[in-house]
Amino acid sequence: MLKKMSKVVLSAALLAGYVGVAQAEMSREDYAVKFRRSSFTAMTWYMGPMSRMVKGEMPYDKALFARNAEYVAFLSKLPKDGFIPGSDGGDTKAKPEVWSKADKFKEANDNMEKETAKLAELAKGGNLDALKDQYGKMQKTCKACHEEFKKKAD
Amino acid sequence: MLKKMSKVVLSAALLAGYVGVAQAEMSREDYAVKFRRSSFTAMTWYMGPMSRMVKGEMPYDKALFARNAEYVAFLSKLPKDGFIPGSDGGDTKAKPEVWSKADKFKEANDNMEKETAKLAELAKGGNLDALKDQYGKMQKTCKACHEEFKKKAD
Repeated sequence: MLKKMSKVVLSAALLAGYVGVAQAEMSREDYAVKFRRSSFTAMTWYMGPMSRMVKGEMPYDKALFARNAEYVAFLSKLPKDGFIPGSDGGDTKAKPEVWSKADKFKEANDNMEKETAKLAELAKGGNLDALKDQYGKMQKTCKACHEEFKKKAD
Repeated sequence: MLKKMSKVVLSAALLAGYVGVAQAEMSREDYAVKFRRSSFTAMTWYMGPMSRMVKGEMPYDKALFARNAEYVAFLSKLPKDGFIPGSDGGDTKAKPEVWSKADKFKEANDNMEKETAKLAELAKGGNLDALKDQYGKMQKTCKACHEEFKKKAD
């Protein structure tokens, strides 16, 4: 039944236009959750090699670090678009404080964008010590926001 | 047990550095699948309003269209980074042809990047008819690649 319904919805979406299939299968609020989690996943993917470089677990590659830092700075602008009203349920770890303390959440978000932008700027220079320092500052903005606005993993 | 193990892994990841938690919990290949699916999810999110605008389902908003087109053009550069060797299993709809016809897959990917970049460029101008035309051209690159390289939804 679910499979059948999903096919009907899918066909309607395909008739209406190719893109938007995923949205057609779930509510806008659930899709917002999926989207914002996806944006964090993409950020984490590009942080991986930078993290290993600042920890000395892989050789410093200036071009790769700069590319990834640029991508992370760009991606850091995305998540806020997904915290739409009503998207506090479903498959999310967002605490209610995201919405009840919207000003503080915005500030935490702004800090992330600011520090990732600084990292991307510094990465063009290629001074690994400066990058280590700035990578740490960026991480602090992740941590600070998670502690206040994200439920624990279990 | 799983919960307990996941906490141990998590603690190790936290000691090693804050970011990389997700990677530490799954193989690099599985994380690549998660990442590339995330990048498509983010693209689809920003395509939604553009799709509705070209179909006349919502009023044309030049700034919003241009912003989303720019984001999609940027995001279109991401997925290819996730099709790493060995990531043909797990939670993926990628056909084996992604790897066995790597040149054709690259071409399909290049087409997507090219047409999304054109859409972003055109969007600065604000001619809705031109955008409808280019949006269609972009969609064709999605469709062509999905037909050849993506397994069907069911």
